[in-house]
Amino acid sequence: MARTVVGVMGGGDYASEQSIRNAYRLGELIAEEGWALLNGGRNVGVMAASAAGARSKGGLTIGVLPDSSTRFASPEIDIAIVTGMGDARNVINVLSSDVIISCAGGPGTLSEIALGLKNGRTVILVNFDIGPVFMEYAGERLLRAATPEEAIELARQALAQK
Amino acid sequence: MARTVVGVMGGGDYASEQSIRNAYRLGELIAEEGWALLNGGRNVGVMAASAAGARSKGGLTIGVLPDSSTRFASPEIDIAIVTGMGDARNVINVLSSDVIISCAGGPGTLSEIALGLKNGRTVILVNFDIGPVFMEYAGERLLRAATPEEAIELARQALAQK
Amino acid sequence: MARTVVGVMGGGDYASEQSIRNAYRLGELIAEEGWALLNGGRNVGVMAASAAGARSKGGLTIGVLPDSSTRFASPEIDIAIVTGMGDARNVINVLSSDVIISCAGGPGTLSEIALGLKNGRTVILVNFDIGPVFMEYAGERLLRAATPEEAIELARQALAQK
Amino acid sequence: MARTVVGVMGGGDYASEQSIRNAYRLGELIAEEGWALLNGGRNVGVMAASAAGARSKGGLTIGVLPDSSTRFASPEIDIAIVTGMGDARNVINVLSSDVIISCAGGPGTLSEIALGLKNGRTVILVNFDIGPVFMEYAGERLLRAATPEEAIELARQALAQK
Repeated sequence: MARTVVGVMGGGDYASEQSIRNAYRLGELIAEEGWALLNGGRNVGVMAASAAGARSKGGLTIGVLPDSSTRFASPEIDIAIVTGMGDARNVINVLSSDVIISCAGGPGTLSEIALGLKNGRTVILVNFDIGPVFMEYAGERLLRAATPEEAIELARQALAQK
Repeated sequence: MARTVVGVMGGGDYASEQSIRNAYRLGELIAEEGWALLNGGRNVGVMAASAAGARSKGGLTIGVLPDSSTRFASPEIDIAIVTGMGDARNVINVLSSDVIISCAGGPGTLSEIALGLKNGRTVILVNFDIGPVFMEYAGERLLRAATPEEAIELARQALAQK
Repeated sequence: MARTVVGVMGGGDYASEQSIRNAYRLGELIAEEGWALLNGGRNVGVMAASAAGARSKGGLTIGVLPDSSTRFASPEIDIAIVTGMGDARNVINVLSSDVIISCAGGPGTLSEIALGLKNGRTVILVNFDIGPVFMEYAGERLLRAATPEEAIELARQALAQK
Repeated sequence: MARTVVGVMGGGDYASEQSIRNAYRLGELIAEEGWALLNGGRNVGVMAASAAGARSKGGLTIGVLPDSSTRFASPEIDIAIVTGMGDARNVINVLSSDVIISCAGGPGTLSEIALGLKNGRTVILVNFDIGPVFMEYAGERLLRAATPEEAIELARQALAQK
């Protein structure tokens, strides 16, 4: 059957240094688990960092690009899914992920958390405080982790329950 | 040129009674302003109520459906845009709206608020407390209204600045 | 219920003069029937001409744009549906049309004919020879007309059978 | 950089036996070239056969599903891209493929050939007579092959010119 795919979401152009460090580490850990990494594919922020981390450990990286070409793709992406659909690709990101881990980000990231929850996915926030919004999912499918390692442990549990 | 289109977002199956009352009134007011109403088109919650309100005042109603047919469309929709794209139609909702007014809702509604802000739209919340998320937009493109009437006044101002 | 929507497809930048004349006339006739016109919304070729024809007779015009803004929209479009999805909007064009009339065009137009037939729509070709492809639909849901007037008569019959 | 991705298109439920044999062989050959195989992901026809062929030779298989889950995915798909977008995923199929090989199929396949040509892709038809349509591309980006082996040779040449 299909490989387990873990989506990593988070800020692009304005990602914080901590988000980027978390994303790189998440990529490493995802690869070490044998999971494929999926993200938004662009060569900035959490996308670039998580792909680089996964690649550094020999993982498979999938980038679902908003653009109609691979021009802005991270060079660390193995499989570029070229959608030409702008933000509508966020829906594909969440539907194609067995579980979603989100570093801090802006409204694009929030849209993915929202769409993930709406579509039955478990969403794990790493050092990302989004306030009381979505609190009806808190502790069930919306989880919080303080470190990448904790996020991977939560992802492992969520995948085991699928 | 194209008509002014105001999007009304908000809960579907689980919309509160207050949301539905607000949505109906928003529809009436939008029609009275001469604006076209756009929403998600289904025959439930804020979608059905806002379309009914707009129709009751002779307004034009546009429904951007997630489905691949009009089977679940509200009968108060004049123009059914059939996308067959599920939640990806949320992107179309926000891009096609000159300004967005959001009643309370769940993650689908939150995804539209997020996508609207990401794409430069002014989003007006009517009795919808989303906490500190998106606070970087507060008072600029993320506005709060206590009543439908106040939301329409804010929409008028936002449209005047475009 | 929703208004009857007739889609007019055909060439954009490279449309022939005859296609453009046919498109304008189709727009006029669609408006006179009281149907809403839907097309790809851009300010070129069959899109611009059919919208202009419909507007000249007081018809309602809907443009489903591939772009993420209305920058390239025809000024004859009343309702701009902004998809930001590139060619994926072709699917929306056909699903949102109760019947499809196609003037001559290139591969974009062919994709709409194909998607229309796949999704149960009747497609009426006006002076557009596409060879034996789709011949399994010929005479049933793939019809040929020599003039805009004949196309409208075939559209009327197709709509009556829905 | 990203891996070379070759898309294989063709009929689903109604694929001919010859198409299915060709698709299986194409999958084998694509895997042997070290290319990733991309198709529509469902467990029928050319999709299922090409994935099975590629997997039998250790190739990586990517399925871009129209559905909102993996329920109808072929078990031979390694990476399931879940779009929930119906036929709009055909656009993603062609944009994500460096070159497209098409076995015989119906209107869905024709839409992919059309969208591929519109978006600058080389499309290689294997035993698929589509008549004079798209003849402006014939011999340049629309090529014909009598066998899977010949198609792969043409794909190799097209990739070398990119």
